[in-house]
Amino acid sequence: MASGIGRRRAAALAEGSAAYTERRAEIVAAAARVFRKNGFNGTSLAEIAESLGTDRATLYYYIGSKDELFHEIVRDAAEANALQAEAIRDSAGTATVKLTRLITSLMSSYAEHYPYLFVYIQEDLSKVSGGRSPWARQMSAINKRYDDAIIAIVKSGIEDGTLRTTTSARVIANGIIGMVNWTHRWYRKGDPSMPDANEIGSAYAQMVLNGLAVETAAPAGS
Amino acid sequence: MASGIGRRRAAALAEGSAAYTERRAEIVAAAARVFRKNGFNGTSLAEIAESLGTDRATLYYYIGSKDELFHEIVRDAAEANALQAEAIRDSAGTATVKLTRLITSLMSSYAEHYPYLFVYIQEDLSKVSGGRSPWARQMSAINKRYDDAIIAIVKSGIEDGTLRTTTSARVIANGIIGMVNWTHRWYRKGDPSMPDANEIGSAYAQMVLNGLAVETAAPAGS
Repeated sequence: MASGIGRRRAAALAEGSAAYTERRAEIVAAAARVFRKNGFNGTSLAEIAESLGTDRATLYYYIGSKDELFHEIVRDAAEANALQAEAIRDSAGTATVKLTRLITSLMSSYAEHYPYLFVYIQEDLSKVSGGRSPWARQMSAINKRYDDAIIAIVKSGIEDGTLRTTTSARVIANGIIGMVNWTHRWYRKGDPSMPDANEIGSAYAQMVLNGLAVETAAPAGS
Repeated sequence: MASGIGRRRAAALAEGSAAYTERRAEIVAAAARVFRKNGFNGTSLAEIAESLGTDRATLYYYIGSKDELFHEIVRDAAEANALQAEAIRDSAGTATVKLTRLITSLMSSYAEHYPYLFVYIQEDLSKVSGGRSPWARQMSAINKRYDDAIIAIVKSGIEDGTLRTTTSARVIANGIIGMVNWTHRWYRKGDPSMPDANEIGSAYAQMVLNGLAVETAAPAGS
């Protein structure tokens, strides 16, 4: 029976009717809400089915496993982040303004999509580059789009003289992404000892752009 | 026989004679050199024994497994980094000077101890906190010493007015450590497309302290 459902799911995915695609997207979004509320490990497919007012057998017509659901959710969130980074790159404004928006929106995204983007950073991100599964290839392409957008912003800032550094735009981009991505090791959403994501994102943007050091000799009159 | 050697090793470790301890430290240092040259996965205990002019049976009298060797090497390197961070914290100079030294020396350490500190960051670092093995407890304590040293430097800079931020010293410390630690995902020592570790460390220190943004209104005469 499971394999019967598997065949029907594969056929429906291949056919890609509007109704099937739409319902499947609803299921992925509902699963994301349940993961956000109850954690990834603490959520079963039965609970996701229940939150949609359906049963597991019906769910299996749309989604093969919890891992498949995780992959879809992560891809949707990462793709939204890449689109956002590209929109920031293509917007008006200085590189300084763009990097501030990029850093704060990436940190907000990690809080919004908590905890599954962090699970992905910890468990999968280092393996998708060069990975052969369709999902790994898609993720690798999405990551490259994100990297390319931030590198382009840093490069254009160096070229127009609004940014300065002694290394390449790529090393700077890796440093900025690393600083924000490293939050997966320590940021726990909802923990009262944690600052909120906005505070973290803003402070990191300010550190990266204006530096922590207070100028010792301020210009007169400023 | 393996278990006979295991018992003799345990007895020798417990006794802790100067000769045994010294020879064991020599073996750990030699293994670190072989790992640096041939990579961790590409190195067998037989090759380590060979580099010391001894055989595997003799090596087993000092070291139980490749994992044990890895744990020793990582602990020695991480402890040296914690000592270095504490020495920087306790040195004369401004917080700005201290953070620059700390960032550049951490990046140098990752290059010097390449690749095993990176293997540790990827595979073990997130698990040692709360881990119950003697090694996990030791590593957790070493990590806390490192964190405490950098937090103390940032705090003292905020207090004496040489540093400014809109968030806590801990969040800033996490950001700095994260930026440098994230190099484990992209820095490949010896790859000709990579800048060297000094360039990366200096550029990150400069970004964190002085910022990427060029002041738009420079004071006259500067």
